[in-house]
Amino acid sequence: MKISGYIIDLFKKEIYKGCIKIKENIIEDVVIENNSEERYIVAGLIDSHIHIESSMLVPSRFAEAAVKHGTVAVVCDPHEIANVLGTDGVEFMIDNGRKVPLKFFFGAPSCVPATSFEESGAKIGIRELRKLLAKDEVKYLSEMMNFPGVINDDREVIRKIKIAKEMNKPVDGHAPGLRGEKLEIYIRAGISTDHESISLEEAREKIEMGMKIQIREGSAARSLDSMHCLLAENPEKLMLCSDDLHPEMLEKGHINLLVKRLLALGYDIFDILRIAIVNPVEHYGLDAGMLRKGDKADFIVIDNPAEFNVEETWIEGKKVYDGKNVSFESPVVRPVNNFNSGIINGDDIAVRQKKGKVRVIDAVDGELVTGTYEWTIPGAGGMLKCDTGKDILKIVVKDRYKDSDPAVAFIRGFGLKSGAFASSVAHDSHNIIAVGADDLSICTAINRIVDMKGGLVVCNKGDCSEIQLEVGGIMSDVPCGTMAEKYKKLTDLVQDMGCKLKSPFMTLSFMALLVIPELKISDKGLFDGNKFEFVGLYI
Amino acid sequence: MKISGYIIDLFKKEIYKGCIKIKENIIEDVVIENNSEERYIVAGLIDSHIHIESSMLVPSRFAEAAVKHGTVAVVCDPHEIANVLGTDGVEFMIDNGRKVPLKFFFGAPSCVPATSFEESGAKIGIRELRKLLAKDEVKYLSEMMNFPGVINDDREVIRKIKIAKEMNKPVDGHAPGLRGEKLEIYIRAGISTDHESISLEEAREKIEMGMKIQIREGSAARSLDSMHCLLAENPEKLMLCSDDLHPEMLEKGHINLLVKRLLALGYDIFDILRIAIVNPVEHYGLDAGMLRKGDKADFIVIDNPAEFNVEETWIEGKKVYDGKNVSFESPVVRPVNNFNSGIINGDDIAVRQKKGKVRVIDAVDGELVTGTYEWTIPGAGGMLKCDTGKDILKIVVKDRYKDSDPAVAFIRGFGLKSGAFASSVAHDSHNIIAVGADDLSICTAINRIVDMKGGLVVCNKGDCSEIQLEVGGIMSDVPCGTMAEKYKKLTDLVQDMGCKLKSPFMTLSFMALLVIPELKISDKGLFDGNKFEFVGLYI
Repeated sequence: MKISGYIIDLFKKEIYKGCIKIKENIIEDVVIENNSEERYIVAGLIDSHIHIESSMLVPSRFAEAAVKHGTVAVVCDPHEIANVLGTDGVEFMIDNGRKVPLKFFFGAPSCVPATSFEESGAKIGIRELRKLLAKDEVKYLSEMMNFPGVINDDREVIRKIKIAKEMNKPVDGHAPGLRGEKLEIYIRAGISTDHESISLEEAREKIEMGMKIQIREGSAARSLDSMHCLLAENPEKLMLCSDDLHPEMLEKGHINLLVKRLLALGYDIFDILRIAIVNPVEHYGLDAGMLRKGDKADFIVIDNPAEFNVEETWIEGKKVYDGKNVSFESPVVRPVNNFNSGIINGDDIAVRQKKGKVRVIDAVDGELVTGTYEWTIPGAGGMLKCDTGKDILKIVVKDRYKDSDPAVAFIRGFGLKSGAFASSVAHDSHNIIAVGADDLSICTAINRIVDMKGGLVVCNKGDCSEIQLEVGGIMSDVPCGTMAEKYKKLTDLVQDMGCKLKSPFMTLSFMALLVIPELKISDKGLFDGNKFEFVGLYI
Repeated sequence: MKISGYIIDLFKKEIYKGCIKIKENIIEDVVIENNSEERYIVAGLIDSHIHIESSMLVPSRFAEAAVKHGTVAVVCDPHEIANVLGTDGVEFMIDNGRKVPLKFFFGAPSCVPATSFEESGAKIGIRELRKLLAKDEVKYLSEMMNFPGVINDDREVIRKIKIAKEMNKPVDGHAPGLRGEKLEIYIRAGISTDHESISLEEAREKIEMGMKIQIREGSAARSLDSMHCLLAENPEKLMLCSDDLHPEMLEKGHINLLVKRLLALGYDIFDILRIAIVNPVEHYGLDAGMLRKGDKADFIVIDNPAEFNVEETWIEGKKVYDGKNVSFESPVVRPVNNFNSGIINGDDIAVRQKKGKVRVIDAVDGELVTGTYEWTIPGAGGMLKCDTGKDILKIVVKDRYKDSDPAVAFIRGFGLKSGAFASSVAHDSHNIIAVGADDLSICTAINRIVDMKGGLVVCNKGDCSEIQLEVGGIMSDVPCGTMAEKYKKLTDLVQDMGCKLKSPFMTLSFMALLVIPELKISDKGLFDGNKFEFVGLYI
């Protein structure tokens, strides 16, 4: 088979009239020729770091959406499913991903469970790690979030890194704000990438010390605006990634949107494509083609190098997207799960009213960090109720693995005037988390999730709406468009109930993320992230 | 008087314990000394390019708000008031600004009127320009928007530039998208700044060719995210500006917010302050102090160089802001105006229904550019009414200078389900512009503006709300907070009527800006900005 047009050659850094010859799944040859085709042929795009689970889609459904944007490969860290199901979860991802053309390359999760202060579904220890890293699909040890562990020479942490190095697999970093001597120790331990830099200056320092920086644009964090200058300075040290992509964002675009924005800023197309394609392939040793003779026939057809609109996507010699339709079908998915929670009732989440001060979590729109608000309770007796006038609502976390009693606290910033909403997507352990204005709505929402064994639920005045997440309680086997629509509907409902947050389910999902201060809640109770210890509800 | 703390020395590029000694309005000395003050003293911030009129506040009211953010001087182009009142308008600005401590430096408007295709309130010709440029307060020839005129060697345009050069005053540029040879001609003509670059690459090219770039963050356009890298490359070639600041944005911050963002990105504080202070002072030859012995005592006190929170602002040796209150009062303002429009009635804006196709302006949220939508009218007879189901509304522009008949057309994208809103802020000539769902509401809104001789009005089902702009029909003598609140209220009302635009009054004000394509409307009729000619309502 022969495809003609302009060839965008990433290595010669030239664009010329020519054709590629494909034999089975291989580029047999790339030839200069005259032709009248006005299309441009270029290697396919790569996301260098993503948690597929944030799309709430299984990998095969993620693939359907991603190939429409010119993505041919993703480097993904199955950290979320691993927290729920351990290596079984990772194997589900590998197995499901293998059934579609998009190339999934995996990391072996380095930090499961994330902390010992919450009930988690699984542990990935040394033995499990060794098993995972031995797999061909597993290309690296994923983001080493436990950077204090690295710096303090924690035995198990260092061992994990050592195993990866012995197997010649790189180790991904995750070190927001780490600088100077500590950063040096972290890098010397063998960690070679980072996608968490807070400032441009920090990213520059990391590059100077030898790291590669993954510029991130996703649903939870965006750094292209602050970091793009690095492309003029060190194109060889950069990659592009999304980290987390909610379904409505994935529906609109992927790495192609970053390429478009960098082109609009006036960067050189070969520098842009280097960080979007060449660098991840070389860093992680990916089996993804880059349009050279003998490469896998993974490429895309675009309208022109200025607009960069994707017209076709090809993977291993097959046209998987023709500008309108995706050629493959998502396989039948047999859901895996780890969900043992029973239902709760009002008594389980009632809080006795005492005179004194209550620690209230202060949530901030779009932030992972929270504050503490001190709520003065004037008198004792009876039960302590939410105060919607002051925007003080109840927050509940229910362990879904051992079915122990729920933890209850109060929270400010969600703005609900009535009802409740709940989710079994709650970083990092994915227990059930709910915020609401009254106990009945909260119980109804949580029990609906228990019923479905995972999902998102909004309940108000007796009416409930929901998304079932039947795979691990965090993903589902539906098309991206369907998920995006449902997710928007639930978000609208929560906002109609008075919530002013831009992305209420995302903010909710961070309220149990203990490693980010100041006040959070796990299934075991209120947690002070500065002191790294549990604290009482009353001060 | 002596003030102690840390001194941030912009020229030695050092921060040291010391004090400044002030005698009257002058820094008598800057001395190294030990003291226990934890505050930092630094020269005050400067906006290098702003149209004060966009705040809808007279300069003295603008000053009250700006000094709270550490601004000590602004370089302003009185282009809007000049379009209404010519040199009288400019003189009003100079005179009013002189009555408050904030330092206003002015440009002589280069392009008044902006086009000959609309009724304008005044013309600034060669004679007027010479008179303005001779004034001490007038530091430069303001933005030369007529770049085709420069490139095509238009006699009057070239003469204007020549006059400024002869008087040793720099000429500001305004050349979006201009590159290569044409840019070279533009620069060679004597134009030395630009704040309109579309891409980073374009800004780089302009710098390479010798221009200075003003990084802009304002209500209408924002380029800090795309351009900040230039600070690492060429700090000597940059300045900061806002260009346009609506009252609610001015209420929140000014150049201080840009400084904070650049600090958060990790740029060197001396580079940041160079572009926020030193470069505008040197480029425009401003009489603003930079904390050297003998300088005017213009400076600010901040909490620390990392947070950059402004605690005090001093101008010419007087504390004009103490962290809570502003020390000066805005003077009594005697409004100037140029407003001769009579009221209109339904007959004036009725449109006869004919079979055929109507040219409809297609407005886009947040964009100055519009499109053309072709609206098919199936049958003739009677009057052509708005179709809110299709979001086709009526747009009317009424000349406010000669009181000629209004121009009427149709527009899509505003989303009103009922009512109308109108404004006498309409770039560049500031005639009256209105969009509405029915003729009665449109007439009521326009007539209310005529009654007030300028302002913003929203009318729906017989109820009207308004802001009077008694100065030139574009500014008012009220505190910034009051204006911000009123402006938000009117915006909310328009949105409650179904409008989905983020900033409906801003979008409305651009619909008569003929120089930006594709389809616009002046008081003389529908205008095709690509062909640069009037077109009929029916195709």
